[in-house]
Amino acid sequence: MIYNENKVDDVQIAYIGGGSRGWAWNLMIDLAVEEQLGGTVRLYDTNWDAARKNEIIGNSLKNQPDAKEGFIYKAMDSLKEALVGADFVIISILPGTFDEMESDVHAPEKYGIYQSVGDTTGPGGIIRALRTLPMYVEIAHAIENYCPDAWVINYTNPMGACVRTLYSVFPKIKAFGCCHEVFGTQELIAHFLCEERGIEKIAREEIKVNVQGVNHFTWLSRIEYNGENVVPVYAKMADKYRESGFEPGQANNWMNNHFSNANLVKFDLFNRYGVAAAAGDRHLAEFCPPWYLKDHETVKKWKFSLTPVQWRKDNLAKLLEKSQKMIVGEEDMKLKTSGEEGVKQMKALLGLGSFVTNVNLPNYGQLSNVTPGTVVETNAMFSKNRVQPIFSGCMEESVLALTLPHIYGQKLVVDACMTKDMAPAFKAFATNPLMTASLDDTKALFDTMIKNTDRYLEYYR
Amino acid sequence: MIYNENKVDDVQIAYIGGGSRGWAWNLMIDLAVEEQLGGTVRLYDTNWDAARKNEIIGNSLKNQPDAKEGFIYKAMDSLKEALVGADFVIISILPGTFDEMESDVHAPEKYGIYQSVGDTTGPGGIIRALRTLPMYVEIAHAIENYCPDAWVINYTNPMGACVRTLYSVFPKIKAFGCCHEVFGTQELIAHFLCEERGIEKIAREEIKVNVQGVNHFTWLSRIEYNGENVVPVYAKMADKYRESGFEPGQANNWMNNHFSNANLVKFDLFNRYGVAAAAGDRHLAEFCPPWYLKDHETVKKWKFSLTPVQWRKDNLAKLLEKSQKMIVGEEDMKLKTSGEEGVKQMKALLGLGSFVTNVNLPNYGQLSNVTPGTVVETNAMFSKNRVQPIFSGCMEESVLALTLPHIYGQKLVVDACMTKDMAPAFKAFATNPLMTASLDDTKALFDTMIKNTDRYLEYYR
Amino acid sequence: MIYNENKVDDVQIAYIGGGSRGWAWNLMIDLAVEEQLGGTVRLYDTNWDAARKNEIIGNSLKNQPDAKEGFIYKAMDSLKEALVGADFVIISILPGTFDEMESDVHAPEKYGIYQSVGDTTGPGGIIRALRTLPMYVEIAHAIENYCPDAWVINYTNPMGACVRTLYSVFPKIKAFGCCHEVFGTQELIAHFLCEERGIEKIAREEIKVNVQGVNHFTWLSRIEYNGENVVPVYAKMADKYRESGFEPGQANNWMNNHFSNANLVKFDLFNRYGVAAAAGDRHLAEFCPPWYLKDHETVKKWKFSLTPVQWRKDNLAKLLEKSQKMIVGEEDMKLKTSGEEGVKQMKALLGLGSFVTNVNLPNYGQLSNVTPGTVVETNAMFSKNRVQPIFSGCMEESVLALTLPHIYGQKLVVDACMTKDMAPAFKAFATNPLMTASLDDTKALFDTMIKNTDRYLEYYR
Amino acid sequence: MIYNENKVDDVQIAYIGGGSRGWAWNLMIDLAVEEQLGGTVRLYDTNWDAARKNEIIGNSLKNQPDAKEGFIYKAMDSLKEALVGADFVIISILPGTFDEMESDVHAPEKYGIYQSVGDTTGPGGIIRALRTLPMYVEIAHAIENYCPDAWVINYTNPMGACVRTLYSVFPKIKAFGCCHEVFGTQELIAHFLCEERGIEKIAREEIKVNVQGVNHFTWLSRIEYNGENVVPVYAKMADKYRESGFEPGQANNWMNNHFSNANLVKFDLFNRYGVAAAAGDRHLAEFCPPWYLKDHETVKKWKFSLTPVQWRKDNLAKLLEKSQKMIVGEEDMKLKTSGEEGVKQMKALLGLGSFVTNVNLPNYGQLSNVTPGTVVETNAMFSKNRVQPIFSGCMEESVLALTLPHIYGQKLVVDACMTKDMAPAFKAFATNPLMTASLDDTKALFDTMIKNTDRYLEYYR
Repeated sequence: MIYNENKVDDVQIAYIGGGSRGWAWNLMIDLAVEEQLGGTVRLYDTNWDAARKNEIIGNSLKNQPDAKEGFIYKAMDSLKEALVGADFVIISILPGTFDEMESDVHAPEKYGIYQSVGDTTGPGGIIRALRTLPMYVEIAHAIENYCPDAWVINYTNPMGACVRTLYSVFPKIKAFGCCHEVFGTQELIAHFLCEERGIEKIAREEIKVNVQGVNHFTWLSRIEYNGENVVPVYAKMADKYRESGFEPGQANNWMNNHFSNANLVKFDLFNRYGVAAAAGDRHLAEFCPPWYLKDHETVKKWKFSLTPVQWRKDNLAKLLEKSQKMIVGEEDMKLKTSGEEGVKQMKALLGLGSFVTNVNLPNYGQLSNVTPGTVVETNAMFSKNRVQPIFSGCMEESVLALTLPHIYGQKLVVDACMTKDMAPAFKAFATNPLMTASLDDTKALFDTMIKNTDRYLEYYR
Repeated sequence: MIYNENKVDDVQIAYIGGGSRGWAWNLMIDLAVEEQLGGTVRLYDTNWDAARKNEIIGNSLKNQPDAKEGFIYKAMDSLKEALVGADFVIISILPGTFDEMESDVHAPEKYGIYQSVGDTTGPGGIIRALRTLPMYVEIAHAIENYCPDAWVINYTNPMGACVRTLYSVFPKIKAFGCCHEVFGTQELIAHFLCEERGIEKIAREEIKVNVQGVNHFTWLSRIEYNGENVVPVYAKMADKYRESGFEPGQANNWMNNHFSNANLVKFDLFNRYGVAAAAGDRHLAEFCPPWYLKDHETVKKWKFSLTPVQWRKDNLAKLLEKSQKMIVGEEDMKLKTSGEEGVKQMKALLGLGSFVTNVNLPNYGQLSNVTPGTVVETNAMFSKNRVQPIFSGCMEESVLALTLPHIYGQKLVVDACMTKDMAPAFKAFATNPLMTASLDDTKALFDTMIKNTDRYLEYYR
Repeated sequence: MIYNENKVDDVQIAYIGGGSRGWAWNLMIDLAVEEQLGGTVRLYDTNWDAARKNEIIGNSLKNQPDAKEGFIYKAMDSLKEALVGADFVIISILPGTFDEMESDVHAPEKYGIYQSVGDTTGPGGIIRALRTLPMYVEIAHAIENYCPDAWVINYTNPMGACVRTLYSVFPKIKAFGCCHEVFGTQELIAHFLCEERGIEKIAREEIKVNVQGVNHFTWLSRIEYNGENVVPVYAKMADKYRESGFEPGQANNWMNNHFSNANLVKFDLFNRYGVAAAAGDRHLAEFCPPWYLKDHETVKKWKFSLTPVQWRKDNLAKLLEKSQKMIVGEEDMKLKTSGEEGVKQMKALLGLGSFVTNVNLPNYGQLSNVTPGTVVETNAMFSKNRVQPIFSGCMEESVLALTLPHIYGQKLVVDACMTKDMAPAFKAFATNPLMTASLDDTKALFDTMIKNTDRYLEYYR
Repeated sequence: MIYNENKVDDVQIAYIGGGSRGWAWNLMIDLAVEEQLGGTVRLYDTNWDAARKNEIIGNSLKNQPDAKEGFIYKAMDSLKEALVGADFVIISILPGTFDEMESDVHAPEKYGIYQSVGDTTGPGGIIRALRTLPMYVEIAHAIENYCPDAWVINYTNPMGACVRTLYSVFPKIKAFGCCHEVFGTQELIAHFLCEERGIEKIAREEIKVNVQGVNHFTWLSRIEYNGENVVPVYAKMADKYRESGFEPGQANNWMNNHFSNANLVKFDLFNRYGVAAAAGDRHLAEFCPPWYLKDHETVKKWKFSLTPVQWRKDNLAKLLEKSQKMIVGEEDMKLKTSGEEGVKQMKALLGLGSFVTNVNLPNYGQLSNVTPGTVVETNAMFSKNRVQPIFSGCMEESVLALTLPHIYGQKLVVDACMTKDMAPAFKAFATNPLMTASLDDTKALFDTMIKNTDRYLEYYR
C-alpha cells in the first residue's frame, strides 16, 4: 500500500472465487467508481478460464467514460501467487457446482422437506457446509502462510461455518463475513417511515439498528431513526400488512422473482415475537420449524418462493453469454454501484473513514447470551486496521430459543470438518427444525445427499 | 419436633390440598409404616369435607395390623391454622376442577393440537399455570407469615412455575419440588441391565444418574451402575427396541392404561440426541414439536396415549366411592408404600440419614448453561436442615435447544402472575413448540381457554 | 430543542452545582465558542448566590469579541425549576465543604495512611461517598419526576458510586459519567510517539485506545496510532524513564504543582503488569496497596504529591476573588477551550456528529469479566440520542485482581446508601487496600471520620 | 481388584514419593487398621533406598497385634512398573531437597519478605512450583500411558498448580487433591460449640461446612451443626478471643511448635470479612498482604511462627534415625490413625460407602465466580468410581478480591510450565501480595532464587 493525500494506492486484493459472475462483477463496478483507492485485484479461481475472462472484463471497465483507472485485474495461476503480499483477501466461492446444489435443495423434497434457498441451514445448508469447509481449511492455512496480516472478507455461505472454520484453523486471522440481508430490512423500514410521515426519501443507513443473531437470521433489538425509537412504526405496519404483505417497490414482484417476497414472514415473526427479523423471508423461513415451508401451497400463501436450482443453472448460462459479449466488446457492464459495503469497509480499514455496520465475527461476548466462539452477526465499528464489535446485549429469549438449533448446528458442522468425522454433521442434520422426517428416513436422506456430493468429500476419508 | 434416640416425634406436617385422594393417600400409607417419625398431619383443603374425610381415613389406618401409631390427622379450618408451627408444608392441589382441565387439554384439539397430559407445558399447561400461580402467591405469603422456617415440598403441576412463584414471593422460602418421573427411567434401565447381564434384581436407586433439565423434561447426562458407565447398555436397548418398544412389566399395557407407554418416544429421543430422556413418554412428547402428538394415529404409532379428562372424572367418582367405603369401614387402604420419596426427604431434613435424589430448585448455577433463577431439576443432597444441589454441569446443547422454549415459558407465566398481566403468558402460549396454529387462531384459542377458566382468574383483574 | 440546518437551538441544560468555579466555568467557555448550539443554561446550586454570580459571569461572556451569543444563563430557585423541560442535566457538585474533605483526606494520616486526592477510593473516597450518595438519591428522584428523558452527565466523584446510585434509584435514567483522566495518558503517548518518530504533533484523539476499568483506575488493553499497535513504544519509554520519570511539558513541574506528576507510578505499573494504566499518578496510587503512598518520602520518590486540602481552601479564596472581579468587569474569562468533551457529547446526542470516547456506565457485559451492574469506564459510541458501549473484552487478570477491591467497594457504598445502613460502608473501608491499620484502629478511624461529616449524614438516621 | 462381600482385595496402590517419612507412614498405619481393603502398595521413589526402607517398615507392621494383614509393600524399580495395573496412584513428593526449600523460604528475607511455610504461594511457593511442575508433566504422561483409569490422589504442594498440571497434560485423568487444613478449623469450631453449649465431644465431621477457595486459603460460606447455622457462635468466639487467641489443646503451644498457632489470624480475618477462613494461620497469612508477616515481631504478635527450613532438616535426621530403628526392629510404628481421609476416599471410590468431603478439583462451575479451570477446593461427593463436586455458589466478593492474585498465580505458573517460559512465572512472582520489594529488587530476587534451584529446571531449557 502507498498512502497519498486522502488516497491509498497499490492496494493488493486477492479474490478467491475470482471467476464468479456475481460478487466479482459487483466489486469491479464498485472499484471502478472509487476515487480514493488504486491497486491490483488478483483473481484466483479453480476455474482459471473464468478468472481470465474476468481479468479481461475488469481491465476493459476503464474504457467507460465514468470509470476511474484505479485498479488493474490479473488472473493468477495459484492460490499462493494470489495471496503473497495481499492486503485484502475476498472469498466468494461456489463450493461444487449447481448439480451438488440441486441435491442440497431438492433431495429433501422426497420427504416433504422444502427449502427456499438451501445454502445456510436446513439439510441443504448442512451438506453444503460439509463440502465447503475443507476448502476453507485450505484457504486458512494458505492465508496463515502467505499473508497472515491481510484482512479477509468472506461472502460464501454458509457464512457462520465458513468464518468459524477460518478462525479454527488460524486463530489470529483478521477475518469477518459480510452480508447485505439486513440492508433490505432497513430499506423496508425507511419506506414505512416515508409512508407514515410523508417524507420523500430516507437512506437505509439512516435507520440505525442494533443487530443480533446469526447470518440470515438476524434480529433488530433496537430500531431508531433520527434518535427516535421507531419500533412502534414497524409494529403498526406489521399489523396493517399482516395479510396483504408489503413490497416497497413493485407489487406482486414475489410472483415473478425468486428473490422477492412480500415480507409476510417478517411480519408474522414480529407479531409473534415482538422483535423485527432482518433478512429476506426466503432465508428467515428456513430457520423456523416448517411453519412457512410446509408445502408449495404454504409458501405461496406467505408470498415468497422456493428458488429452484434449475433457475440458477439457466441464469448461469445467461451470465456466461453476457460475459462473452463483454469480452468481445458487444456489451458494457453498467457502472451502477452494488449497494454492497465491501469497498467502504476496505477504505475504513485503510484509514479512509470510520463507520459502523453489521458483520459476522466470532462471539467474544458482544452477544451476551450466545456461546462464545459462535460466529454471530452484530454491529461493529470499522476503523483503521480494526473491526471492533459494538456491545449488543442479550438476545430476546424466545428468539434465542428459535436460533439455538442453528447456533449448535454451526458448531457441529465445524466440528465435523475439524475432526474429519461425519457424526456431528449428522446430529446437526437430525436436529434441524426443518427435519420432520422419522429418524430412519433422516438417515436415508443424509446418506443420499452425502453420496450426491461425494466427489467433494475426499477430505473426510 | 422432639428428638429422641433415632426418632423424631411431634413433627407437624401441614398438607395443603389435604382432601386429595392421590398424593394424600400415598403419604398416609408411607407414614403409617414409618418407624422413626411421629406427629400430626394437618389437612387443609378449600373443600373442608374432603379434608375431613381424609382425617377419618388417616386416623383409621392405625387399626391395621402392620401400621405404626406415629401420626394423627386433623382437618383444619384455615390455611393459617394449618401453617402456624408447621415443620413441613406439603402442597398438592388441583387448581380448579376437572372442568377447567377439560378445557386445558381438549380445547386446542379444534386446531389440531393434541396433548397427552396438558398440565405442564403446551397450551394446557400454560393456562393451568395462570390459574394456579395466584394460589401460590397466597400460599407463599402465608408461609412467610406463619411458618417461615418450614420446609416446603411441592407436588403440584406445573412444577417449575409453582416453585418459582414461591421463591418470587418469598425469596427465603425453603421450598423444593418433587416428582417421581425420573424413577421410572431408572427402573427401565435396571430392567435392561438385568436382561443384559442375567442379574435377578437391581433396585432403581442403584442406577446412579446425573439429572439435568426441567420437570417432566429431564435428561440423564450420566448413567452408572456400580461405578460403571452403562449408557452403552441403554444405547443398545434403545436401538434393539426402537420399533417394538419395551415395557418392563406387562406387554401392551399402554393400550389399556393411560399412564403407560412402550418407551418409544424415549428411545427415539435417545437415538436422535444421544442423551437419555427421563420421564414418561406422555410428558416428553409434550415438550417436543408435534413429532409424537401430530394426531391420534401418530400417538398410537408411538405406543402411548392421550389421557382424556373424562377418564379423570370417571376415576374421581370411583375414588370418592372408595373413600366413602373406607370411612364406613367397608374397605381398607392397602399399606403398600408408594415409591415416593417425600417421607425419606423429610427424615433426611430431620437428620435421619443423608441421601442424594433429584429435585426442583431455582438454578443458582448447578446447571451451568441455564439462566439463573429458572427452576430446574437436578440432583441434590438432602441432609439435616439442608438441600444442597449437586453440581450438574452443562446441558448438551441440542437438548438445551429443545428445552429453551419451556425454560422461557416458565419465566413468562411467572412474569404474568407477578405483574398481573396476561401479555407474557400469551407470548409463552404463542411460542410453545406444540402451537402450530396461525397467529390469529392462536389468539382465538387463547381467548377461549382463558374464558373457560375465567372464574379462577380474578386475581388478574 | 429546535433543529435548524446543522444547528440546534433552545437546548435546555440544567447544571446542578451551577455555582461552581471549576467545571461550570469550563462549560461556559466551551459553550461560548460553540457555533452549532444555542439555548439556556439553568444554574442550580444549594448556594444560590454562587449560581447567581455565575449567571452574571456567563451572560457577560458574549461581550467578548470571539464569543458566540448562543446561550443565556439563569440561576434557578429550585431543583424542580431547573429540571422541568431540561434536555441535559449536568451534575458537578462539591458534597459538603472543604472542611469535610479535610477530614476525608487528612484524618487517616494519624494511622499512617496517606491519600493523594481522597475523593474516589481509600478511606476518604468511601466517607465522601456516604455524604454524596444521598444527594444523588434526591437528584435521581427529581430527574425521574421532572425530566425522565433528559441525558444526564455526571462529573462528581466518586464517579462510579454516583452514577450507580442514579441507576439504582431510577433504572431508566439516561446517565453517564465523564472524566478527562484518560486523555492525559493519550497525550503522554502522543508525546512519546513524536519523540520516537520525529513527528511534530499528534492530537491525543489520534491515539486510539481500548479503555477498561473503573474511573481513575482505567487501563488500556490496546493502544494504536494510525492502525499500528504502539504498546511497544510505550514499553520502551516506560523502561527508559523508569527512574527519571517523564513530564511532557515542563520538567519537575510535579514539585510545584499538586496536580502534576512525572508518570513514575504509571511506568512502574506498566513494568509490573504489562498493561498501561491511564490516569494521573495521584489517582492510580490510591487504588494500589500503599506502594506509592507509604509516607511523604515515598510519594516524593515517585515524583508526585499529596494535595493538601488547605491548598484547595486557599485556591477557593483566589477563585472567589476572581469571580468577583469578573462580575464587576475588572477581569475577563479567557476563552480557552477546556479540552473536556461535554459539549461534544451533547452535540453528538443531538445528532451533530457521532464519535467514540470513554465514559462511565453500568456494566451490561461490555467488560466481560466484571460483575454486571458495576459502573465501569470503557469506550462507547455517542450518536443521536444514544450512548452505546463498545465491547471491551476481559480485563487482564492481574489488573482485575488489583481492581476488584474497588469494584466491590463501589457496590458496598451504594448498598450502604440504598439500605441506609453503615455496615456495608465499613466493610468497604476495612478491606480497602490502603487500610493497613489494625481492625481496632480501623474502627476508631471510621467513627472519627463519620463524626466529622455527620451533618451530611442525616439521611441514614 | 477383587470384590468380596463388603471387602475389596487385591487393590493396587502406586505410591509416588514412596520413600517419604510423612504421608507414606500415615498411609501405612491407616491401611494397617483397615478391615475392608487388601492389596499391594507399590512404593516408587527417585531415592530407591528410601522406598526399600519403607517396604521393610510397611511389611513389618503386620507383626503388631492390632494390625490386619491386608497389604503388602513393594519398592519398585521404575515409575512404569509402579503404575501398570494400578487402581490408585498417590503422589506425595518432595520436589528437590530441603536445600532448595531453604532458598524458597529464606532468600526473600533479604528484602524484608517473610514466609511462614513457603510451599504454596508467595515467592517460595512460586519457585517451588517451577521446580515441581515438570515432574508432574512426567507423571501425568506416565499415568496416561500406564494406568489411565486409575484414581490419582495428590498430596504435594503447591496443590492447585500440581493438580492443574495433571489435567493440563492429560485432561481425562481422574485426579483430585487432598488436604487436611479444613479439618483443623472444623475441630476448632467443635471446641467452641462444646465450650458454648456444655457438650462433651463433637466430632469434626459433625461440623458441616461449605468450603470455597483455593487450597490453604479456604473459606467457609456456611457452618452448620446438627442443621443449625453456627456462624454466630464462631463470630462470638472470634470476638471474645480476638486478642488472647485460642488454642483448643495446650495453651501457648504455638511458642514451641512451628505448626501451631493461636488462631489470631483466623479471628482477625473473620472480624474483617465476616467469613471464616479455614486453614492454619501459617498458611492463611501467606495469602494476604504482609499484614501478619511484616517482620518477626508481627508474626509473634499474631501468635504463630515461621517454620525455619533448618528445623525441617533437623527433623529429617530424626526421622531417618527412627526409620532405621524400625527397620532393625528396635522401635515400632504406633498404630494411631492419621485423621487423613485418603483410605476413606479410596474405599468410597471402590463402592464402600459414599461421603462428602472437601477436595481440590478443576473448577467446572462448582465455584460460580471463579474462572473455570482453576483448581479450587470445595466439597464433593465421593461414591463408587465418582467424585462429584457439590455446587458451592459464589465466593464473597471481598474474599474473592483477596484470593484473585493467587488464582491468577496458579494459572501463571502452570502456563510457565506448559510453555517452558519463565515470563509468566515472573509475573506471578511480581504481583504476589507478599512482594513488597521494588521492581528491580523483585527481579534480582527472582534471578537469585531461580539460580538456587537451577539443577531442577533443566526442563525449561
